[in-house]
Amino acid sequence: MRAILHVCTTCRGPVPDPVEPRPGAMLHAALAGAALPEGVELRPVECLSACSQGCSIALSAPGKWSYVYGRLSAADAADILTGTAAYAAAADGLVPWRERPTIFRRQSLARIPPLGPQQE
Amino acid sequence: MRAILHVCTTCRGPVPDPVEPRPGAMLHAALAGAALPEGVELRPVECLSACSQGCSIALSAPGKWSYVYGRLSAADAADILTGTAAYAAAADGLVPWRERPTIFRRQSLARIPPLGPQQE
Repeated sequence: MRAILHVCTTCRGPVPDPVEPRPGAMLHAALAGAALPEGVELRPVECLSACSQGCSIALSAPGKWSYVYGRLSAADAADILTGTAAYAAAADGLVPWRERPTIFRRQSLARIPPLGPQQE
Repeated sequence: MRAILHVCTTCRGPVPDPVEPRPGAMLHAALAGAALPEGVELRPVECLSACSQGCSIALSAPGKWSYVYGRLSAADAADILTGTAAYAAAADGLVPWRERPTIFRRQSLARIPPLGPQQE
């Protein structure tokens, strides 16, 4: 496993009270129906605590920085998979800026350093 | 190690162009000068990619959910340590809502599930 792509299935998106299925569930369905990059596991999750910035996804993997992105929709599925492939291929999860899709450059909500000894 | 408390030392806080030291560095200094909860390691980090929501911190630990909080300042150091102690004591990192300090209830930017097999 080189990366986990977590997708919030309860995200409401920019609409306060969307009809079912929720935008987050639709984003998950779009990703589940696509060809995942090698080594990537797609996981649904109920709430990434970024509700004001939904739809949201998170990328994590052992030994890598984790990332959370927001303000997404099912229309972003292809770009999400492109960015996820680059993340999965990066040893530490740090993808050069120019190789990130625009949504990953502009819609980062947060990143978290990897576990393990502190890097100097 | 039961939890890592990451503090963004480059966070500018709500001011576009603050004087040095930056608010993030001041928050880190306040935490570094306090008694850390048992099993908690304080780590400075340059940028948690939550720049519009600084000052920001992140909590992570093996096998636990990770959390990112924002809109903090050095004045929140005591509450941050209270919340960090509760996080460190929770096996999965999930602290009951009523036991979280107000800043952790209201200023969550995101959370990320733990690594490991998917939970049903």
